Amino acid sequence: MTANSKDGDLRERARRVIPNGMYGHESTARLPEGYPQFFASGEGARIRDVDGAEYIDWMCAYGPNLLGYGQPDVLAAVEAQQRRGDTLTGPGPVMVELAEAMVDMVSHADWAMFCKNGGDATSMAMVTARAHRGRRKILVGTGAYHGASPWNTPVKVGVTEEDRAHLIQFEEGDLDSLADAARRAGDDFAGLFVTPYRMRTFMDQTEPDAEFARGARRICDEAGALLIVDDVRSGLRVARDCSWETVGVRPDLSCWGKVIGNGQPISALLGADIAREAAGKIFVTGSFWFSAAPMAGALETLRIVRETDCLERLTAIGEALRAGLAAQSEAFGFGLRQTGPAALPMVLFEDDPDFRLGYAWCAAALRAGAYLSPYHNMFSNAAMTEADVTRTLEATGAAFEELRRTRESLLPPPQLAPRA
Amino acid sequence: MTANSKDGDLRERARRVIPNGMYGHESTARLPEGYPQFFASGEGARIRDVDGAEYIDWMCAYGPNLLGYGQPDVLAAVEAQQRRGDTLTGPGPVMVELAEAMVDMVSHADWAMFCKNGGDATSMAMVTARAHRGRRKILVGTGAYHGASPWNTPVKVGVTEEDRAHLIQFEEGDLDSLADAARRAGDDFAGLFVTPYRMRTFMDQTEPDAEFARGARRICDEAGALLIVDDVRSGLRVARDCSWETVGVRPDLSCWGKVIGNGQPISALLGADIAREAAGKIFVTGSFWFSAAPMAGALETLRIVRETDCLERLTAIGEALRAGLAAQSEAFGFGLRQTGPAALPMVLFEDDPDFRLGYAWCAAALRAGAYLSPYHNMFSNAAMTEADVTRTLEATGAAFEELRRTRESLLPPPQLAPRA
Repeated sequence: MTANSKDGDLRERARRVIPNGMYGHESTARLPEGYPQFFASGEGARIRDVDGAEYIDWMCAYGPNLLGYGQPDVLAAVEAQQRRGDTLTGPGPVMVELAEAMVDMVSHADWAMFCKNGGDATSMAMVTARAHRGRRKILVGTGAYHGASPWNTPVKVGVTEEDRAHLIQFEEGDLDSLADAARRAGDDFAGLFVTPYRMRTFMDQTEPDAEFARGARRICDEAGALLIVDDVRSGLRVARDCSWETVGVRPDLSCWGKVIGNGQPISALLGADIAREAAGKIFVTGSFWFSAAPMAGALETLRIVRETDCLERLTAIGEALRAGLAAQSEAFGFGLRQTGPAALPMVLFEDDPDFRLGYAWCAAALRAGAYLSPYHNMFSNAAMTEADVTRTLEATGAAFEELRRTRESLLPPPQLAPRA
Repeated sequence: MTANSKDGDLRERARRVIPNGMYGHESTARLPEGYPQFFASGEGARIRDVDGAEYIDWMCAYGPNLLGYGQPDVLAAVEAQQRRGDTLTGPGPVMVELAEAMVDMVSHADWAMFCKNGGDATSMAMVTARAHRGRRKILVGTGAYHGASPWNTPVKVGVTEEDRAHLIQFEEGDLDSLADAARRAGDDFAGLFVTPYRMRTFMDQTEPDAEFARGARRICDEAGALLIVDDVRSGLRVARDCSWETVGVRPDLSCWGKVIGNGQPISALLGADIAREAAGKIFVTGSFWFSAAPMAGALETLRIVRETDCLERLTAIGEALRAGLAAQSEAFGFGLRQTGPAALPMVLFEDDPDFRLGYAWCAAALRAGAYLSPYHNMFSNAAMTEADVTRTLEATGAAFEELRRTRESLLPPPQLAPRA
């Protein structure tokens, strides 16, 4: 995809005017060779690269595509609001309507604040937790991703020790480790961040764990600290509510983003009444936080989530893919570990410590028209059909076939050399 | 605007589901009574509130409205891209085209990185400056606004001392103060943030100052620190280039936002080659940073800026307003201080230490159809016509008239009591 192609030409131009030609989570730097960097269009479940190849897209823009790219009702709501007014000198009525809709939908929430990046919501949650009782210590899972600001970025270049001075780490899902972290925080314990389940790159995922969730709630209650669920990635794919509602535990704050506007730029911090005063004392803002068009898109997205079986559908699609891959891998003699909620599937190969099998398999599936990730959880969306799953399984079947032939000659992915 | 009105009803509903009913820079909490919080629509130079009142809007969404709300060419570019694909699994070709357009337009820039909030760009600049030579100290003007993250928010609630541990303040525009700050930073001096001129609320503005700019450049060069111009607010209203190009000084990094997509959610960090390697080493990202529709809007906005006399027009409009207000204030016996670039006018009253004159005058002008600010710099836009200036001056004339009658009975604005 790099030589004699439009993607290659664009990469070349990009290298001149963008550091490394690309940055952030949509960079293909860690993906197998052959993955296109630039896309011409997207519709429903599919994306088309700039050289005209079409893929069934299991990355869904790394989450935002919940209902299908360009979902007509959402797009119509966005366009209508854009024409009336988008970024104005004050918000539109849609801001109030959207806050009401989110508070209605999410059991623990009494109020909402909107922003742009998922990281805006997590940073606001941190500041709110500190403002709540004037405490400083924030507990975060080791390796858990909560954004890319100095305090939470996984890459520490350009970051000072002080940026992370009051963070205390614990092992995700481990109540003893969490209790120990809480003890270390002592009476300076402001807030605890959790993801609803473990969702890290290159690792098996878990599922929401009732015992851990109840323990986390109890530890926060005993300390008078705020419990924060970061639902930016998992929100609306696990539940029509905060993801921990599935295990009966309600946080004080939850962070939302990605899907809530089906790709429109909007994120949110939701909170319970206990955190309302603190949230009202902090100063947070952004040039486009009050823009009405993304809010109109989010309001329509939430309506569809509420009134249709889209969540059940995208879970069923994820389960169909999982079942198909399990059968294929067994037939071809490979072991797969398929983990996490079905709507956010993670697929890793057994006996693949340097990921050469996964990388080769994904690269082959891509050539056959299925866009998968060898290291990041994937996402299903409600525009996917049984036919898309069938078509994906044809691609992965061809990929297993190829992998069976080539497995002995595979080398470790050079993209992962810096990691190893 | 609070009782028996749609705005009042929305505020009441908002208070239930949003802390304080509203937050951030578009909250009317510090504005005079009568300012509507919610707007139904905007077109060209005008906004209409939810009760149907129309205003000539001199706040321009606090900057983003450069060419007029809903400018047809920009809107068409945005809608066309939205239908092709917006937030996908990778960027579109428009990302490269936009980076090329910005690098072509801004003299000091060799590369660009896009993000959402102005504060994303300033935070990326800070991290890049620290990554450049592994130093930590960041120099910022006392009271200068560079965003609302923990490291730079003007309100310290929920913020720790460590969040600001490596900031060193200097007095804006004061070379001695800057040199002293640089000495204190010593060999840990990573970067210097400046706004192109002093632009603070409740204060007279300045203009870009060649001597200070040259001195800042020299101090950074001598220390091997990066010079960062925060052009988020002033960009494209002062020059078709970095605002300090008007005084012949080129920074290493510049931060852009607000206007570059005429209200579309996009911001940017631009840099010179000296900072390219550092910018390529940091990890920064956001769910919607690679969305194509705002980039298409920005590309079209930049084309219009480049190919039309819009910048000259909005400067002329600002000058016409300024001249009109000067004549009116003299005629009515009030002293006005009108400061800053004409396209970003600041209007403050002489002999008005508690702002009662300015607040009453703005409130009266609002009732007559002109939306002004008594504490924040305003903005002209290219959709404003001579007739809009005339109409605005009718409103401000009526406001001066009223102010002459009521001045003796005015009280200090209660909104400012927490400030005083």
